[in-house]
Amino acid sequence: MVIRVAVAGASGYAGGELLRLIAQHPELEVTTVTGRSTVGRTVGEVQPHLRSAADLVFQDTTPEVLAGHDAVFLALPHGQSGAIAEQLPDDVLVVDAGADHRLASEADWRAFYPGDWHGAWTYGVPELLAEGGRLREALAGTKRIAAPGCNASAVSLALAPAVAAGLVEQEDLVAVLAVGPSGAGRSTRPDLSASELLGSANAYAVGGVHRHTPEILQNLALVTGVRGSISFTPVLVPMARGILATCTARLAPDADERRLRAVYDEAYGDERFVHLLPAGSFPAVEHAIGANTLLLGLAVDTAARRLVVVAALDNLVKGTAGAAIQSANLALGLPEAAGLPIDGTAP
Amino acid sequence: MVIRVAVAGASGYAGGELLRLIAQHPELEVTTVTGRSTVGRTVGEVQPHLRSAADLVFQDTTPEVLAGHDAVFLALPHGQSGAIAEQLPDDVLVVDAGADHRLASEADWRAFYPGDWHGAWTYGVPELLAEGGRLREALAGTKRIAAPGCNASAVSLALAPAVAAGLVEQEDLVAVLAVGPSGAGRSTRPDLSASELLGSANAYAVGGVHRHTPEILQNLALVTGVRGSISFTPVLVPMARGILATCTARLAPDADERRLRAVYDEAYGDERFVHLLPAGSFPAVEHAIGANTLLLGLAVDTAARRLVVVAALDNLVKGTAGAAIQSANLALGLPEAAGLPIDGTAP
Amino acid sequence: MVIRVAVAGASGYAGGELLRLIAQHPELEVTTVTGRSTVGRTVGEVQPHLRSAADLVFQDTTPEVLAGHDAVFLALPHGQSGAIAEQLPDDVLVVDAGADHRLASEADWRAFYPGDWHGAWTYGVPELLAEGGRLREALAGTKRIAAPGCNASAVSLALAPAVAAGLVEQEDLVAVLAVGPSGAGRSTRPDLSASELLGSANAYAVGGVHRHTPEILQNLALVTGVRGSISFTPVLVPMARGILATCTARLAPDADERRLRAVYDEAYGDERFVHLLPAGSFPAVEHAIGANTLLLGLAVDTAARRLVVVAALDNLVKGTAGAAIQSANLALGLPEAAGLPIDGTAP
Amino acid sequence: MVIRVAVAGASGYAGGELLRLIAQHPELEVTTVTGRSTVGRTVGEVQPHLRSAADLVFQDTTPEVLAGHDAVFLALPHGQSGAIAEQLPDDVLVVDAGADHRLASEADWRAFYPGDWHGAWTYGVPELLAEGGRLREALAGTKRIAAPGCNASAVSLALAPAVAAGLVEQEDLVAVLAVGPSGAGRSTRPDLSASELLGSANAYAVGGVHRHTPEILQNLALVTGVRGSISFTPVLVPMARGILATCTARLAPDADERRLRAVYDEAYGDERFVHLLPAGSFPAVEHAIGANTLLLGLAVDTAARRLVVVAALDNLVKGTAGAAIQSANLALGLPEAAGLPIDGTAP
Repeated sequence: MVIRVAVAGASGYAGGELLRLIAQHPELEVTTVTGRSTVGRTVGEVQPHLRSAADLVFQDTTPEVLAGHDAVFLALPHGQSGAIAEQLPDDVLVVDAGADHRLASEADWRAFYPGDWHGAWTYGVPELLAEGGRLREALAGTKRIAAPGCNASAVSLALAPAVAAGLVEQEDLVAVLAVGPSGAGRSTRPDLSASELLGSANAYAVGGVHRHTPEILQNLALVTGVRGSISFTPVLVPMARGILATCTARLAPDADERRLRAVYDEAYGDERFVHLLPAGSFPAVEHAIGANTLLLGLAVDTAARRLVVVAALDNLVKGTAGAAIQSANLALGLPEAAGLPIDGTAP
Repeated sequence: MVIRVAVAGASGYAGGELLRLIAQHPELEVTTVTGRSTVGRTVGEVQPHLRSAADLVFQDTTPEVLAGHDAVFLALPHGQSGAIAEQLPDDVLVVDAGADHRLASEADWRAFYPGDWHGAWTYGVPELLAEGGRLREALAGTKRIAAPGCNASAVSLALAPAVAAGLVEQEDLVAVLAVGPSGAGRSTRPDLSASELLGSANAYAVGGVHRHTPEILQNLALVTGVRGSISFTPVLVPMARGILATCTARLAPDADERRLRAVYDEAYGDERFVHLLPAGSFPAVEHAIGANTLLLGLAVDTAARRLVVVAALDNLVKGTAGAAIQSANLALGLPEAAGLPIDGTAP
Repeated sequence: MVIRVAVAGASGYAGGELLRLIAQHPELEVTTVTGRSTVGRTVGEVQPHLRSAADLVFQDTTPEVLAGHDAVFLALPHGQSGAIAEQLPDDVLVVDAGADHRLASEADWRAFYPGDWHGAWTYGVPELLAEGGRLREALAGTKRIAAPGCNASAVSLALAPAVAAGLVEQEDLVAVLAVGPSGAGRSTRPDLSASELLGSANAYAVGGVHRHTPEILQNLALVTGVRGSISFTPVLVPMARGILATCTARLAPDADERRLRAVYDEAYGDERFVHLLPAGSFPAVEHAIGANTLLLGLAVDTAARRLVVVAALDNLVKGTAGAAIQSANLALGLPEAAGLPIDGTAP
Repeated sequence: MVIRVAVAGASGYAGGELLRLIAQHPELEVTTVTGRSTVGRTVGEVQPHLRSAADLVFQDTTPEVLAGHDAVFLALPHGQSGAIAEQLPDDVLVVDAGADHRLASEADWRAFYPGDWHGAWTYGVPELLAEGGRLREALAGTKRIAAPGCNASAVSLALAPAVAAGLVEQEDLVAVLAVGPSGAGRSTRPDLSASELLGSANAYAVGGVHRHTPEILQNLALVTGVRGSISFTPVLVPMARGILATCTARLAPDADERRLRAVYDEAYGDERFVHLLPAGSFPAVEHAIGANTLLLGLAVDTAARRLVVVAALDNLVKGTAGAAIQSANLALGLPEAAGLPIDGTAP
């Protein structure tokens, strides 16, 4: 039985990636795509790379158009999914690829986002350690999923095992991420023009103001119940997709590389989509492009007394659309890995 | 009066950049270039972009060839300049663009480099704060200069004012740098191939093993006399040149943005080649390409209790060849800025 | 029933792409991978992006190792597959991703390649127009397939319909291709280093000496029986994968855009993997990355009296590994499109 | 005596490059910069890479503001310089970096541009062969200069010697150019976003509609008096600056490589800014970045009966701002090369 899917905001990058991935899914089928300025045009015109969905016609993004599907994926600008979602039936699976339903604290929301807070949905990172297990269990059977922020996903998965095991301090984490411009969506911001970014790199949202900051702290509190602190800086670099997150944490007195590797093995050794590389190996972004895969490399700096975990992922796949589908698979009772590629497209 | 210059290792990237910059210098003139496998070929064949020096012929890299100049710049692979330099006359200005004469501690040298330690020369970062002033004073009239490591230069200048003023802790610094592949020289390492790096990013020398680590700690101890600690991670990104260094430090209890900006203004306000951007502005690598300029942006993360300083520079200019010439200007009694461009080549 | 596949040269880019694509194929399974310097190592170590095949161990590239499979894909350096192939059983499907079996003329071979000529196999571009139909028919049931050169594939498919219909002259074709460095394989050639290619572009094999030249002329003679001429220039540009081929031909006196679009519609209108964009639209390389898709845009320059066809494809997929699998599907009696993605991974 | 210069449109890429180059000029000094939306802001805010002009304040772009200088450089969007220029005094040197005064034929103008035709000024490519000499002679002492289109400059200089000598046909020229996005100015067009261009390439203005087409034909008619034809296709590739032009022409019956190289040597052998590489060598874009240099490589394809000339230049320097200054030097009676770098910034 085919599971009928609507993708709202299918003219953007996250929406397009949902179409690309769902086309390879054995059970899901996109029957409706919506947009705003693209209404009446075909996917083939707007997203020429999506040959498999070329003839679908964009409809308006309304609750009426989105109703009548088994699952609705919302890939809308931040702040636009809350109102739409409230008008969708309770028994339809709704997955929000935007930020509107990620933060469980209204205070966090108000500190980092404009507009109304809409409350938090089940967070769509199945592998993330939570009290008594992983978020996977909470996702099984849910009807409302908040797909993660791409940067938050990378940093949270990179640091959670060490934090949960108490082998690093939860305070004074430091993460610096090399990120591609597609994370900002289909934008024409001057600093995201090819002329400005080619041959260059620049940091933005410096000094604790990036919106993924509270999301990371929320994630890392799932096991410990304690909110730590993090210095988080994204650096825009000239690659279209991908994130390379360098995440560091102060070592606990009794931490060493053997113990740390053991807790990561314990956390991710059976995971299909999260993989720790052998000692001395570190991932490159190209290894994860196009795949629902997060690759981790780990080192212990004994002089600086810091754990360093390097994480690579594709912001549009494991960071957004892939995470959304993986979580939806769990919610729908399908095999978690259904339709999700694990091989990157390198070089 | 023309100052006659020899450039050893002029077939590499640092050597080529020395030629490019010296061609614009009003007093210096390159009369000799040396190489190894390029002996007998012209600069025009080996470095086709250097039209101004196209007819110079590479000679062998020997003390005899290098003698008889007013200044000798050594742009040789690490470990090769020490032996050559010992055979050059004492009264000739020698500037080493390699690592051989940077570290003042033999223990540091042995921990990070193979081969013999050759002792430290005057360190070629004039703006760097030192006890009672800046390194500029030590450079005036010296005959032996160690040009800095490009990463070390960026991080040291980014953090020195705050460290010197005691507004941040000197322990537990964290720096993550987006760096271009030219920093590795004219290399054919597989991970530096265009196929592997285009569309990708990867960290290397993770966990405290990068050779610029002791150099940074040495620099930051110049004023305080205390050796701190730093977690230092370079991330290779797809831009040919340039470094964007995100440098963070734990705030001292009484530090705030106003005080911090004041000490940076005090440190660099009169400097021609180091410039702090206004509050809220952060530099991009493109702003520094081709120029002997370091641009800094500063933010205070009050939640994470960290200072974040973002530094952009051209690794081959302010990071190597430009720093070498700037320091040589001081040593030769010339205007410090002679021949050095301050405008970047953007976009 | 699983069809057991061996991939020789699986440590290279074409070989790796065969593994990536076959992992998504419903009938084929890679049971053996071979290399040379990688013997004894795992795919996970050598090709970290191929998580699905991570545990396969490289064996030596010998006829004995390759025998005992239903299909053998040879992704070896040019000149190395001929000798190996002669020792493989006649009833095993052998697909050569190298150049050794592409050229039907020994004179062409000798003019462009060193070493012995091994004769031509069935050419692996199913959509290419041939006398009385397409190459598809010849591929059904064959046991020996020569996968195309990536550039040759792009130019041949771009020009064949117009040539076959006599709407352009077959003489004095001109094609200039923007190509990524991965077409040169996993190379450490200095001009393929990231430092040299980032921010740059350069032509190579200029003036009629590129090896794909006779292959294109051979392809365009399939219908007409006449050998034309082409000025062919590849330009290396800083994208890891992909080809954008700008192909021009002199218009025949009675050619106009309507007639030309009609013959392309006739040629490719029913094809899954070759798609002509609407008038006024031209493809970008990103639209084809990761997919077995060739996208074409067509314009008629009435002032210059030239047809201009712009073709975009992924050199490692439709240009090599995808074409190999598509052709193997035909040879094995499987659905031609089995396992082959048509959606590009943009942006 | 300082020559006082105003730069109109100094907030754009061409205007910024004029500031960067004039800062290195021994005689010229920029005393006024104008913009539109940037009025009241400083160069340091708008063009952070231009440290040498950081304190200049943008004024409005009016004839009043521009009057009172020895030279005025107009770097305005196409169509905006004509009206302004008419209001400037006759005795002031005016250099238009836009297209408004390039085309000598009103019919050409109307076929390719909107708005009124303003007549042609002296064309700013000193090395271009013209009847009885070069354009250099016409530039000496002129008060009105039209700086060339960057693509037109590359193709015209690449083909002019062969055309002028009758060694190639003037009909059926074919040029395909790999170009960087900065040629389009500081644009936020969606196809010029970093996400779309990174890892990709795409042709635009395909089929004879690019505005530089009539300019090229006009240039190549300077010696012969005959208007030929050209198929001209620009391909956008992911490098911020630069053009690599692959230019081909049908060989005349008596043409061979020796004769062709001889006419190029004759044309450019004494030129400082145009350089023909030795046989077998072809330029890369990086060799020309930042410099007022055009590098040429030449091959004869005897099978295809075409001359292939590959040209590399920096579109913002030799293609625009450098050409403007070089021409202004001639007009002002200064040394032609004053202030203009010839060494590229590679890698």
